Amino acid sequence: MNNFEYQNPVKLIFGKGSIAKLSENLHKGEKIMMTYGGGSIKKNGVYDQVKKALEGFSVVEFGGIEPNPDYATLMKAVEICRAEGVGFLLAVGGGSVIDGTKFIAAAVDYKGEPWDFVKNPTLPIGETLPIATVLTLPATGSEMNPSAVISRRETREKMAIGNPKLYPVFSILDPQVILSLPKRQKANGLADAFVHVMEQYMTDNISTLVQDRWAEGLLSTLMTVAPNVLEENPDYDACANFMYAATCALNGYIAMGVNEDWATHMMGHELTAIHGLDHGVTLSIVFPGTLEVFRKEKRDKLLSYAINVLKIQSGTKDEKIDAAIEKTEEFFNSLGIKTRLSDYGIGQDTIDEIVSRFTQRGWNLGEHGIATPEKVKEILESRL
Amino acid sequence: MNNFEYQNPVKLIFGKGSIAKLSENLHKGEKIMMTYGGGSIKKNGVYDQVKKALEGFSVVEFGGIEPNPDYATLMKAVEICRAEGVGFLLAVGGGSVIDGTKFIAAAVDYKGEPWDFVKNPTLPIGETLPIATVLTLPATGSEMNPSAVISRRETREKMAIGNPKLYPVFSILDPQVILSLPKRQKANGLADAFVHVMEQYMTDNISTLVQDRWAEGLLSTLMTVAPNVLEENPDYDACANFMYAATCALNGYIAMGVNEDWATHMMGHELTAIHGLDHGVTLSIVFPGTLEVFRKEKRDKLLSYAINVLKIQSGTKDEKIDAAIEKTEEFFNSLGIKTRLSDYGIGQDTIDEIVSRFTQRGWNLGEHGIATPEKVKEILESRL
Repeated sequence: MNNFEYQNPVKLIFGKGSIAKLSENLHKGEKIMMTYGGGSIKKNGVYDQVKKALEGFSVVEFGGIEPNPDYATLMKAVEICRAEGVGFLLAVGGGSVIDGTKFIAAAVDYKGEPWDFVKNPTLPIGETLPIATVLTLPATGSEMNPSAVISRRETREKMAIGNPKLYPVFSILDPQVILSLPKRQKANGLADAFVHVMEQYMTDNISTLVQDRWAEGLLSTLMTVAPNVLEENPDYDACANFMYAATCALNGYIAMGVNEDWATHMMGHELTAIHGLDHGVTLSIVFPGTLEVFRKEKRDKLLSYAINVLKIQSGTKDEKIDAAIEKTEEFFNSLGIKTRLSDYGIGQDTIDEIVSRFTQRGWNLGEHGIATPEKVKEILESRL
Repeated sequence: MNNFEYQNPVKLIFGKGSIAKLSENLHKGEKIMMTYGGGSIKKNGVYDQVKKALEGFSVVEFGGIEPNPDYATLMKAVEICRAEGVGFLLAVGGGSVIDGTKFIAAAVDYKGEPWDFVKNPTLPIGETLPIATVLTLPATGSEMNPSAVISRRETREKMAIGNPKLYPVFSILDPQVILSLPKRQKANGLADAFVHVMEQYMTDNISTLVQDRWAEGLLSTLMTVAPNVLEENPDYDACANFMYAATCALNGYIAMGVNEDWATHMMGHELTAIHGLDHGVTLSIVFPGTLEVFRKEKRDKLLSYAINVLKIQSGTKDEKIDAAIEKTEEFFNSLGIKTRLSDYGIGQDTIDEIVSRFTQRGWNLGEHGIATPEKVKEILESRL
């Protein structure tokens, strides 16, 4: 087990009816900017619940944050925050709204062009605005971590930022929000949370027994609840388990003391940046290739996964690993996600562009930098 | 899954050599009271490491906090804190030292007799001193939770307190401290952590999939590493997994949204209060009885435990449960702990006294209050 430090200050407020607890967790006196996305919260009742809880507070609204939140959109919110003297940000939405709001929190007081700190993680970000969230789509874990992913369509870039100052003060998770979600969003959320776990688990074996068993518990939970969650009228408990698992998939609990991968995410971000594919879709395409290309480096964990999560009992070790990779792709397909680049009309030219970008950035990704540009090429070509 | 709220501000600093990080996490300017136990830290090098890290700080020492920290001892520390103007408490020890230090933190500014807030959890505790810990014995999880158990030998009482103000600011966990521990302390720590997990897991099944899998992961980790940890020269990784598992066993991670039990602990506390038995020993005596008496109420979880942790494949459901209870007692025995009241010369008179105390206090313990005084009698009599 590696040495580690961990501190997560987020207050989690979880359960049926919890949006009503919003007002008791906010301080009056600060002007609040309420951020949201394309307006689905106006259809599913969340907007009304939040507005009711915010009665008596000074609120300015900023809607229209798109999936893969765009720098240009977010900079409009930054301008409004500066002009109106906003002192607190309340993100009501999924990972894109929350991530975008984290960027706003860091950009408002930033001297200079905020894209600079997105592109260069070593730049200090100075003062940030406090933020809280009402989560409407389980997927990214952003509600309980200090990270965000920001896109810039102008330059076809998608980059991750992370800073302890960007932990939400509190996050409200009412699993009932899942009941009205379209199947595509639920499928993307399940795939995203699943691969988040894998990025922290499916690396080398360095005797992290608790973390490994916990990662396996999250994977098996997501696989168990997925069929019910995807139904038109899912059970509350299935939704609650999905929502809690997605938060635990990326709040740092399973990352302590382990080596992490994240190469699949980096490749996925490029596919979204270049072709606009849903994030969960990109992960589902890439991840089986990562497993196959690094089956030797990830051998111990592939076997643990095969035996403990997928309950594969028979066959040689290599046959178990073959079956595990196959069943992983089948899981994504069972969510209704197609898992080949060719399913989306993407070919060799995109692979060459991604490899060229990674080469220019000098990126050797994955645990111990094993995912060199050459290996990235091999992974993506295996997914054509 | 139940609704829940969770926030844990403790900064965990984990790993080989981490005691050296003490000074960078402390603020100069406050007078620090360094608390510790019977002096084992002076033999194993921890005292020297801490003193070295505290060079340049203003420190007053308070040693001699005994196992099951005593009210009279702790009140002496409270008087010194008041006289010297101590502003920060640093607990260097196991659960007893940390728990005792939490009591000191709450008592220093308390108006009136501090035993009052121990006996009556509804009394507000006012201002508390900030505390930090250097853990020397994995067991109680006190390093990452807001609870403490305090004894009063004068009245043969042992009571639990808990308050969000009592979370440590940070806790330093260096698994190397385990290398020099006597076998008895390691055995007690393993048993204590094991039963902590059980108190939160072995209740009724309310669809908490993540929490259940995580509890099972902790149980299997503790069982896996126990034989090596108990050896005279255990492996670092076994110690690290034990230490991390013991923290996660009682830092709230597996408690979110579940129904908890804790009847075994309450019975165990009385056995310690009356007979001075080690805490881990009392739990090992009582817990198999709790499982047997409530095998119907805990049926789903007993089966999950049998199958997922103990890998019991054959037999009817009841045979699986029989085997699970038997193997649990065998696990405690494998630690070198005897698991019958008669092994310690304890008989019916003690049972009657405990039942009488619980009756007077009006205690119906366990999930949903199923552990009435009558059931407590049945459990303890089954352990004669």
